[in-house]
Amino acid sequence: PEEKYREAAQRRLDSLTKPLGSLGVLEALAAQMYAITGGNLSLPLRRAAYVFAADHGVTEEAVSAYPREVTAQMVHNFLQGGAAINVLSKAHRVELTVVDVGVDAVFASAPGLVEAKVRRGSRNLLREPAMNHEELCAALEAGVKLAQSAQAKQQQMIAVGEMGIGNTTAASAITALLTGLPVAEVTGRGAGLDDAGRNAKIDVIGRAIERHFPSSGMKADPLEVLRCVGGLEIAAMTGFILGAARARIAIMLDGFISTSAAAVAYAMAPQMKDYLFAGHCSQEPGHQHLLRQLGLRPILSLDMRLGEGTGAVLAMPVLESSLRLFSEMATFSSAGVSTAAR
Amino acid sequence: PEEKYREAAQRRLDSLTKPLGSLGVLEALAAQMYAITGGNLSLPLRRAAYVFAADHGVTEEAVSAYPREVTAQMVHNFLQGGAAINVLSKAHRVELTVVDVGVDAVFASAPGLVEAKVRRGSRNLLREPAMNHEELCAALEAGVKLAQSAQAKQQQMIAVGEMGIGNTTAASAITALLTGLPVAEVTGRGAGLDDAGRNAKIDVIGRAIERHFPSSGMKADPLEVLRCVGGLEIAAMTGFILGAARARIAIMLDGFISTSAAAVAYAMAPQMKDYLFAGHCSQEPGHQHLLRQLGLRPILSLDMRLGEGTGAVLAMPVLESSLRLFSEMATFSSAGVSTAAR
Repeated sequence: PEEKYREAAQRRLDSLTKPLGSLGVLEALAAQMYAITGGNLSLPLRRAAYVFAADHGVTEEAVSAYPREVTAQMVHNFLQGGAAINVLSKAHRVELTVVDVGVDAVFASAPGLVEAKVRRGSRNLLREPAMNHEELCAALEAGVKLAQSAQAKQQQMIAVGEMGIGNTTAASAITALLTGLPVAEVTGRGAGLDDAGRNAKIDVIGRAIERHFPSSGMKADPLEVLRCVGGLEIAAMTGFILGAARARIAIMLDGFISTSAAAVAYAMAPQMKDYLFAGHCSQEPGHQHLLRQLGLRPILSLDMRLGEGTGAVLAMPVLESSLRLFSEMATFSSAGVSTAAR
Repeated sequence: PEEKYREAAQRRLDSLTKPLGSLGVLEALAAQMYAITGGNLSLPLRRAAYVFAADHGVTEEAVSAYPREVTAQMVHNFLQGGAAINVLSKAHRVELTVVDVGVDAVFASAPGLVEAKVRRGSRNLLREPAMNHEELCAALEAGVKLAQSAQAKQQQMIAVGEMGIGNTTAASAITALLTGLPVAEVTGRGAGLDDAGRNAKIDVIGRAIERHFPSSGMKADPLEVLRCVGGLEIAAMTGFILGAARARIAIMLDGFISTSAAAVAYAMAPQMKDYLFAGHCSQEPGHQHLLRQLGLRPILSLDMRLGEGTGAVLAMPVLESSLRLFSEMATFSSAGVSTAAR
């Protein structure tokens, strides 16, 4: 987005009946969104959420508190409207789409479900790359296509969420490789591991990184990181984010996993950062490191760690409120209010 | 609210299709609200915002970046629908009431305006107590009456906001006295003072405290703190908060000023804390100290410092979302999802 729109937005914000700068982060959100739309803000925004689902071969290594079947069970739950993301999407007028990029189950076609299965789960990243080159390309492409479809539907803001038992293991490995931080610092309890479980997970991630990227001094290629230690839904989200930014759609990131996909996208095309918003900061320890790397300030910080896009959708009313204020408040001159004396 | 409702709420939260505890702060919000309603949650909540407006005699001492007339001008802006709180109330279906407790102007009667003027501005707290005993009682009573009217209207959640040029000076003085912290640590720039202006404000507050509470070792009586260094709108908010808690209405605090009123209420009747929510943490440095004293975690932290109830109303969709999740999500058994293995 062009700098001139940001400047025009700040001039308008400074003319509104409030102390200068007193809307805090809301002012930055409004200015960024004004720039993304090229000065054509129309409210309410057309909002959508995409939940990318896939299984992970690394669940063979007992890295998660929940069994692998939960991925498919939760996809059924999404389709029946019972999950947290369903409730929030309905409450905040967000169109919800579930994308099967690689769940280890077969689903009947259903409204709101996009079938884009690449494989019934990624490969076990401890033993081999999580995807071969064809699988990586197919997953990326599934995401890019969904971004094109979002553009065709004139969606203006998209939440990026996911479901995949085992996917914090992949996100932690990506984070360690992209930030250079120690594995232990970017690895958490996922959906609820105890201390022993988390230690085993750290060990698995460390060994996977050693296998695929033995020369740790070198900066790893982001696509190769994604392929070797990522996952099908993470790759699809990376393609989706890159495609959405290209289509000038605002992107609301959710938690640790979706931000790991954004971090790969950022490493490939830093200019797409202008389209990113961080919905929240999750309790997973790696998330804040990724947000710092991306230079994003989260809108919410509520210790959520649920995924599905829940933190992203919950932040949407805050973002839309900033745009309402930007568009609808009176100015000092229109309301006859005195400006600051000193 | 009784403990048994909190426990029942937690049992339900633990049965929903999400990892245990993964909704973070939202779970605590839902459980608190469930307890406040005595287990009778009906959505959407009936929500209202009250903006208490008054002038401050201490504006004679040049403690604010904006001239005193701005209080009355902003009340006109509220009545014409052009202020930030109007935009947010409309966006989030919140009924807005403006209460004139002591603005130095006369307003024609208008829809949404409650006339409860005690005096055209508090007295200059540097020279004499901000209110005499009768004025304090009248302001407290105005607040209590509004809480009764809120109860009669069956409002279930109320945002407490204010407008009053000079009122961060009063709130900082209250905060210093109730927390025992040094004045400089709890005094900020208000609506936009520069360094010299802030230093002069700190000096005024320090001298006022010395005049009214010379024996600083003693714990000051909270009502006497309110009377000597408070303000008419702050006293009305204190009465409003006490009355609302008694009527079992949930109270969403806004920024520094409304929290200073809550801190006085808390010092008088600690049990009312169960009805308090902190909408946000403002950029005014005293606010976080008060929140810590009250044991409240703010829902939002967006560096806002606008007042009017804006941070409180902006937090309402987050709180209501927590209740939607609590009420509408499927359980593990209803959705056939496996629970954690370890």
